[in-house]
Amino acid sequence: MTHSSLPETLPFAKGHGTQNDFVILDDPDASLPLSAASVAALCDRRAGIGGDGLLRVARAGALLRAGVIDHLDEGIEESTMFMDYYNADGSTAEMCGNGTRVFAHWVALQGYEQSKEFSVGTRAGAKQVVVHEYSETSADVSVEMGFAEVTGLSTCTVGSQHFAGLGIDVGNPHLACVIPGLDAQTLADLELSQPTIDPEFFPHGVNLEILTPLDQGRTHMRVFERGVGETRSCGTGTVAAARSALADAGAVDGEVTVVVPGGEVHVVLEGQRSVLRGPSALVATGTIQTASLES
Amino acid sequence: MTHSSLPETLPFAKGHGTQNDFVILDDPDASLPLSAASVAALCDRRAGIGGDGLLRVARAGALLRAGVIDHLDEGIEESTMFMDYYNADGSTAEMCGNGTRVFAHWVALQGYEQSKEFSVGTRAGAKQVVVHEYSETSADVSVEMGFAEVTGLSTCTVGSQHFAGLGIDVGNPHLACVIPGLDAQTLADLELSQPTIDPEFFPHGVNLEILTPLDQGRTHMRVFERGVGETRSCGTGTVAAARSALADAGAVDGEVTVVVPGGEVHVVLEGQRSVLRGPSALVATGTIQTASLES
Repeated sequence: MTHSSLPETLPFAKGHGTQNDFVILDDPDASLPLSAASVAALCDRRAGIGGDGLLRVARAGALLRAGVIDHLDEGIEESTMFMDYYNADGSTAEMCGNGTRVFAHWVALQGYEQSKEFSVGTRAGAKQVVVHEYSETSADVSVEMGFAEVTGLSTCTVGSQHFAGLGIDVGNPHLACVIPGLDAQTLADLELSQPTIDPEFFPHGVNLEILTPLDQGRTHMRVFERGVGETRSCGTGTVAAARSALADAGAVDGEVTVVVPGGEVHVVLEGQRSVLRGPSALVATGTIQTASLES
Repeated sequence: MTHSSLPETLPFAKGHGTQNDFVILDDPDASLPLSAASVAALCDRRAGIGGDGLLRVARAGALLRAGVIDHLDEGIEESTMFMDYYNADGSTAEMCGNGTRVFAHWVALQGYEQSKEFSVGTRAGAKQVVVHEYSETSADVSVEMGFAEVTGLSTCTVGSQHFAGLGIDVGNPHLACVIPGLDAQTLADLELSQPTIDPEFFPHGVNLEILTPLDQGRTHMRVFERGVGETRSCGTGTVAAARSALADAGAVDGEVTVVVPGGEVHVVLEGQRSVLRGPSALVATGTIQTASLES
């Protein structure tokens, strides 16, 4: 087996934030030798545990000594809990808004942090979180998401349909299209497939959000993530959606409830700050037999 | 929550047979009040544990007393371990060849049966299994699959491609198409999508297998399951494939190794008998927090 560097049995948890789901490995001392192949095997939905990604929960100092990260960003101490995040294919990712809620839930539940407010280390720097409340199974968590910056107008084509929207950078690129007159049911029935985009405007591809106009502070959204396809939720996508829905209503800053197929979240935009608040669910804990993972 | 009838915490295991994967609930006394909604929530790949189906491991007599089954078929005693099988949507299914291997693996591991050969109760009657060998993580299991009966020639269209093959009944309907000259790589590259079939020949739809001609006792197969889409393996499909591959080579009975995307199995056809032999993997055990399941 290619996973023989892992211990024979591996404790894990499974959780999700608005159905963006994760395998959680509690490894404060960063002692697990996690290869990309092992992460991919663990995230495999049929031969492994299954998840959109994997969250290793470790102290920043331990990850630094293990060579997993090569420096500590401002605001990240040796003792800071660091979200060592991996995509399902084993590649690392800088940040994941929905994952950060689940991470903070786990950190609070394990007692790694005693305060409701703390910093989480990520490859995109320190992120402030607030665990408003939590139980063994659920939590309500706010995560600081940084600046959601409008980069201009663009258009795309999905099947035979043409959409226009705002290009928005939330650390990654989004095209968030408010469709005049669209209601939640018509949005749910929409045929959503790989969009054709403007490659000059989005040279590295783009995540597409289609949304209903703001109505009493709410918008309904579907998202097509670049390199992935349609997902039930996307943290940065909900922040981009809030920015676009507010702009469509003639506002810059404000508060928006974004309803996604996997649940709903609350976004606050205030100048260069944005905060994403939403649920975390811890579904199961257990033990993986690593010998049974596919190589 | 709609799952409040379930206990707060629920032990589970996760396993697969050639990547056809299952949530396993060990419930010998059939004491769990399993609703279709609970099964669907447990099998949900993002908000639950995730699986192609769910196997409840219970004694036939206990299931009878709980009203889950209404009679005991010939060969099924009160003490027989019964595979109470559910599809991921919560509907019951009569039989699942890959699931039966995982079920038998679990039964052997738990010590419910002491012998290598025993009967498994299913909604399609008693099935003989042989657990050739097993460990905590893997097993090699044979399952009696019944008669694979040729019902005639038929054709289908997938995209712009036309295929011809044998209609084969293995308890459920299959169209198994051997493609002359097809090799494993070309099969892997094939665009497989919803087939257009002959509705008079297959009034209840059909599972489609596309396979390479028999070469030194081996065939490579891909399967498109009715109502599901492409899957990594299908137990009855591999039996149908073996029948069709042998027929294409001018034989009726024989032994065939069928290579599927999720692994490989061995099929023996002998008159009205067929036996499917292949692997089972137990990946993890743990505890579900039922309060966190989506309603």
